[in-house]
Amino acid sequence: MAEPEEPAILPEREIEDDAYALDGETVRAIRDAVEGDDGAALKALMAPLHPADIADLLEQMDQGPRHRLIDLYGQDFDGEILSELDESVREDVIAALSPRVLTEAVRSLESDDVVDLLEDLDEPQQEAILEALEMGDRVAVERAMSFPDGSAGRLMQREVVTAPEHWTVGNAIDFMRASLDLPEQFYHIVLVDPRHRPVGHVTLGKVMSADRVTPLKELQEPSFRTIPATQDEEDVAYAFNQYHLISAPVVDEDGRLVGVITIDDAMSVLSEENEEDLLLLAGVGDESITDRTMQIARQRFPWLLVNLGTAILASLVIAQFESTLSAIVALAVLMPIVASMGGNAGTQSMTVAVRGLATRDLTGSNALRVLRREVTASLLNGLVFAVIMGVIGWIWFGTMMLGVVLGLAMIINLIVAGLAGVLVPLGLARVGVDPALASGTFVTTVTDVIGFFAFLGLAGIVLL
Amino acid sequence: MAEPEEPAILPEREIEDDAYALDGETVRAIRDAVEGDDGAALKALMAPLHPADIADLLEQMDQGPRHRLIDLYGQDFDGEILSELDESVREDVIAALSPRVLTEAVRSLESDDVVDLLEDLDEPQQEAILEALEMGDRVAVERAMSFPDGSAGRLMQREVVTAPEHWTVGNAIDFMRASLDLPEQFYHIVLVDPRHRPVGHVTLGKVMSADRVTPLKELQEPSFRTIPATQDEEDVAYAFNQYHLISAPVVDEDGRLVGVITIDDAMSVLSEENEEDLLLLAGVGDESITDRTMQIARQRFPWLLVNLGTAILASLVIAQFESTLSAIVALAVLMPIVASMGGNAGTQSMTVAVRGLATRDLTGSNALRVLRREVTASLLNGLVFAVIMGVIGWIWFGTMMLGVVLGLAMIINLIVAGLAGVLVPLGLARVGVDPALASGTFVTTVTDVIGFFAFLGLAGIVLL
Repeated sequence: MAEPEEPAILPEREIEDDAYALDGETVRAIRDAVEGDDGAALKALMAPLHPADIADLLEQMDQGPRHRLIDLYGQDFDGEILSELDESVREDVIAALSPRVLTEAVRSLESDDVVDLLEDLDEPQQEAILEALEMGDRVAVERAMSFPDGSAGRLMQREVVTAPEHWTVGNAIDFMRASLDLPEQFYHIVLVDPRHRPVGHVTLGKVMSADRVTPLKELQEPSFRTIPATQDEEDVAYAFNQYHLISAPVVDEDGRLVGVITIDDAMSVLSEENEEDLLLLAGVGDESITDRTMQIARQRFPWLLVNLGTAILASLVIAQFESTLSAIVALAVLMPIVASMGGNAGTQSMTVAVRGLATRDLTGSNALRVLRREVTASLLNGLVFAVIMGVIGWIWFGTMMLGVVLGLAMIINLIVAGLAGVLVPLGLARVGVDPALASGTFVTTVTDVIGFFAFLGLAGIVLL
Repeated sequence: MAEPEEPAILPEREIEDDAYALDGETVRAIRDAVEGDDGAALKALMAPLHPADIADLLEQMDQGPRHRLIDLYGQDFDGEILSELDESVREDVIAALSPRVLTEAVRSLESDDVVDLLEDLDEPQQEAILEALEMGDRVAVERAMSFPDGSAGRLMQREVVTAPEHWTVGNAIDFMRASLDLPEQFYHIVLVDPRHRPVGHVTLGKVMSADRVTPLKELQEPSFRTIPATQDEEDVAYAFNQYHLISAPVVDEDGRLVGVITIDDAMSVLSEENEEDLLLLAGVGDESITDRTMQIARQRFPWLLVNLGTAILASLVIAQFESTLSAIVALAVLMPIVASMGGNAGTQSMTVAVRGLATRDLTGSNALRVLRREVTASLLNGLVFAVIMGVIGWIWFGTMMLGVVLGLAMIINLIVAGLAGVLVPLGLARVGVDPALASGTFVTTVTDVIGFFAFLGLAGIVLL
């Protein structure tokens, strides 16, 4: 199946069976068009692609071909492609666009998308984009940028369809028909009081199906929530997911309407937050598949360094038992098993706890119960594995007491794993550190240290 | 702050600073009302809570108080609470509801929510719920249940607002005003051809702002996608997130409209899929914070067993070098460092690769480039850590060549970590296994085995 230039490591299933991702054939044809400098063919191939797909395509290309593609594609470059691009590639693409194309692209975007675009750019590029905007949009974008990074104020769009609370369906329909620039997408009409504070909202569906004389107030949705502009976007995403919100008005500190957040933006945040947790748990940090090698090496270095520190700590524990080890070399052979099992059991408990904290399912009212359950589950598995490994150790080295020591160490370490797996994330959350960030290292340090200490210490007492 | 019965391990920050999660005070007041058998107080406390919050509350309670709460709460029990409950608690709650309350609760739900409810229940409970439904709903639910588990057909709601493609805005508005049972939430009118195949859709916002005489066709959204009823829900969630869909019609194999999926359902799926990946990576499987101890211990056992197997494999490698180890005990002290660093670097690469596969950012067209980059980044860090650990090893044990061996083994193992971190997930994806499921164990096995082998093997050659 694989073409000569596409090596066999590609996961065909992911590509061929998938209705959405760019299929390999299109990608190859586009590469050919770029190499052949065939602008017409390129535009024809790109025309049916969604901006999100084009962004993916650009991310997957090397810098040289990427720039050639941008040159060839020229004026057709859509602003939404910029919005969809991963940060790591965005700067490069913006730098490669001609000023005229960039201006066109940026002007076609909604103000919240421009804000999203600006956030990760450096000063000169930010300035170039702000200058490309028309005055009104520029003011709106600068106002949004005045809200803290990662807040609802940055996430919201400014354009909201509002109606005074005493309006009828007929008033609202007439008003909308007369409006020249309604937002591209909107799902609710927000009812506001005379001081422009939102008091409720009505879905368009309800408005459509009611008589013209019906007061909007009668059609209000029972569940209505406003979001403070300074709220963290992670909390916003949580609220949308928890309460099945479709859109929610954003208010300033006086409760006045300043914008609206829609579920598609919340969905993007949710997806990013989940990615962040996953990567943080693995000690990778805020990294993407398109980052450059040096960047990656540098970003991962700190966590490997921390791990080196904890590994040395474990080695220092082992070093305390050098005389025991030189008397019984079998201990050196078996000791990694105890540490490894503890590390795995600890990671299991920890992941459940970290996720529970992120989804607010682990709270003060059930923390003790979860802890008890994790420790008991660990103990149960510890007992089973103690028997299995005890027997294996006994048979392997012919010393029954070695098996007993191995089994006991296994039980101790799995109990410790359950304890650490829950208490470390809870402790980090309590002192205000993201539990996804540091739990892994702490938990495996504890299980390594205790694992080696318990096994070698017991062996020293029992076997020597 | 903490009450005597609430021990200090609770992460106050998560509870007190959070605008959404149930606050500790309300939870305590509800518990008191349940203990005091005070139904009136309970109902007053529960009235302002969203069904999702009530579900969280029930999940966090022990079985006894939970049943007492359900009894006291009685007729007020909302069907949506059932939808929001985690599977592990749902069966218990359904069993605790009186048949009359259950019937009321189930009848108030939309058909897609009933389907979601039924999926994880056992036969008798499914039957009880189906019997509670009115005939029309029952048929709809049974039809949805005929689609494969986890498919778009299960996720969709059957109620769709459609219009013949030749209608005008006025036709659509008159039709909607005359309709008695429009769906609770809808955002688009789907245009269908005479054979009921969707050909496009119009947002309600566009309909609202256009003149009555405007043909709906002129208002069609440029990006329009249909979803096959048999498509995997994970792919559906991906499409919603990638293409910023708000709702999308579902079609059968003949392209005829059978239902619609809205973004809030896609968001739930996305969130669940992310959770699943995270838990699978940690070897936890499909588990929740409310599962029982025995269940948890049993679910985690297989992965610990697999890990035991791989740990024994690593021990077998060490056993090959018993004579080397008894000659130089320092090796036993240092060898876990090499394995641990390899394991960590491998996990970093692997997590990036697994996530890249899940988000379709890692594909055939950039797999080789990602591999090259990961290995190079690993090599760079390997070189730095080789120097650091070489010096530490030399100073610690006073043998320069021990430092050299340690450094070399570190470099070898970090290169292997980068290779395995990418190739293992790609390989698993290629053979059709979820890379999140098994990558972790494979990668750390490779880095353990190679780490011990390289370090002890080199030591045997160089130092003896």
